[in-house]
Amino acid sequence: MSNTAITDPGPPRLALTPGEPAGIGPDLAVRLAANPLAGAAVVCFAAPALLAARARVLGIALDIVELATPAETRVTAPGTLQVIAVPMPIAAIPGRLDPRNAAYVLACLDAAVDACASGALDAMVTGPVQKSVINDAGIPFSGHTEYLAQRLGAPLPVMLLTAGTLRVALVTTHVALRAVPDLITRDRIGAVVEILHAALRNRFAIARPRIAVCGLNPHAGESGHLGREDEDIIRPTVAALRARGWEIDGPIPADTAFAADQRRHYDAILAMYHDQGLAALKAVGFGESINVTLGLPIIRTSVDHGTALALAGTGAAADGSLRAALELARTLVLSRAHHARI
Amino acid sequence: MSNTAITDPGPPRLALTPGEPAGIGPDLAVRLAANPLAGAAVVCFAAPALLAARARVLGIALDIVELATPAETRVTAPGTLQVIAVPMPIAAIPGRLDPRNAAYVLACLDAAVDACASGALDAMVTGPVQKSVINDAGIPFSGHTEYLAQRLGAPLPVMLLTAGTLRVALVTTHVALRAVPDLITRDRIGAVVEILHAALRNRFAIARPRIAVCGLNPHAGESGHLGREDEDIIRPTVAALRARGWEIDGPIPADTAFAADQRRHYDAILAMYHDQGLAALKAVGFGESINVTLGLPIIRTSVDHGTALALAGTGAAADGSLRAALELARTLVLSRAHHARI
Repeated sequence: MSNTAITDPGPPRLALTPGEPAGIGPDLAVRLAANPLAGAAVVCFAAPALLAARARVLGIALDIVELATPAETRVTAPGTLQVIAVPMPIAAIPGRLDPRNAAYVLACLDAAVDACASGALDAMVTGPVQKSVINDAGIPFSGHTEYLAQRLGAPLPVMLLTAGTLRVALVTTHVALRAVPDLITRDRIGAVVEILHAALRNRFAIARPRIAVCGLNPHAGESGHLGREDEDIIRPTVAALRARGWEIDGPIPADTAFAADQRRHYDAILAMYHDQGLAALKAVGFGESINVTLGLPIIRTSVDHGTALALAGTGAAADGSLRAALELARTLVLSRAHHARI
Repeated sequence: MSNTAITDPGPPRLALTPGEPAGIGPDLAVRLAANPLAGAAVVCFAAPALLAARARVLGIALDIVELATPAETRVTAPGTLQVIAVPMPIAAIPGRLDPRNAAYVLACLDAAVDACASGALDAMVTGPVQKSVINDAGIPFSGHTEYLAQRLGAPLPVMLLTAGTLRVALVTTHVALRAVPDLITRDRIGAVVEILHAALRNRFAIARPRIAVCGLNPHAGESGHLGREDEDIIRPTVAALRARGWEIDGPIPADTAFAADQRRHYDAILAMYHDQGLAALKAVGFGESINVTLGLPIIRTSVDHGTALALAGTGAAADGSLRAALELARTLVLSRAHHARI
């Protein structure tokens, strides 16, 4: 609401973490530098030697520029790749996981997070990591979402995936299915909806977000006959949120909520757990899907695919998801700047 | 393998149970009689007065013919509705559930099941029932699938839904999510795959069925880091089935299995639980989806929609799912007859 004049901050400055060095992340970073996204300044947090080696394998001529600090990030011409150098202990062989590089993968994330948290960069975009090799290295890691939240002291990160006009947020993410029901509480659902509602308004510029809340059990518990959580926990939580005047419906049976003639009534669908929401989202498959973490003090988007080890170094990996993730990060930065101004 | 000449049994004879009398099932039965499916003889198991009343409400002229026995079922001209009369205690008001009619709904099912089991009819097609009102009447009922299996003494009914070229079968169906993990056993998965594999061969005429088996946990347990069931139970079960020479893959993360470029490699996807499979199937939504129960001694298909109480008696209910369910039942009967002959 301030009327203070704000100097145009220039194009959004985006941190890119290519992720697992044996996967396709470095391939995608190299190809992005050869054909950069318009209207954004991108800097890669990675080992320069890794990127140079992958560019050679792919036959792409690159000028790798090491920056001293993230604040030096500029819009670049095609063929220039800006890097904040992160040392990597073992040379990566495409397709071959090595737990000795697990700490490097996290060091890249840490440096990018810190650059965003300090304001030197505007958002971060993450490539795919291989969780199992990080765990095999003895490091507890259940996913980017949880890791970034912990580093940033954010109590409740919310995972949102978008595919075309379909947006799906999750109440729980990377936990065993057995652990899900006990995590479905009024407090948690309420807090997740608050974060989702605020993000739809402030970052996605939807004035009156409409949210569908899925049930936990089949048929949303069939009026309490198939589990009590839908009646005892989800229904009163939704009622309390509606009492604020918010447009929220639920609990809706998940197999109904995602059907085409239902989902078009909502700006986002809130699923109770990972596969309930993401199997449906990825089945629909219009456009590339993008992962956005809400509830963090920084903007973060991500590709929705894995490390595709078999494709690393082959040039066959599709870069649509990474480009879509960068574009969404850019849009969210511009939207945030707009909301800060009005 | 017999060379005995078999007399052409004529068009498939199908039992139709309209289901909940206050829902759209009677509407759909009436409209079907006005515009019958080609190449099939259909008989309705219902209260004649209900069908007559609904026809009047919808402005459809019908000749209702009560049959003495199911064996009298013939192909009919448009405008004739054959009925096996089942008495209904309370006149049904569209949109208004009445637990006093719950036993009637089940009596219709019982009569249709018995007619199929005796060979008087070839298959049954079920309209939507309202489980909650049956339960409210004090009758335990978790779904058609389980009910029919119990009446027929079938130990393991398997729910299969089809939508276009996508087929999804379920290891567990109408149970609370909390109860799912303990039901995921080697024996159960193995038995379900056997039933699914046999049905794809013998009823769907797929010589070498390819089946994708989903993981239970997110990312199929991420190599054991997100729950042990995928590694300890599902993986060895799939390996044992593959050792028979069957084309079965898994555990595959559910959010990958249903993506377009994955699902096209399989004739069926086996989900571990209801929402994992059906949210994705109904999200895809090409064509109408149809529910088929495998593992029964009879052929049974069903609409995939609910009772749509608000649409009962309005003429606005879509009949595509019922027509598709009847067509699939007819096809499965013909395919079974073909397999019996060769």
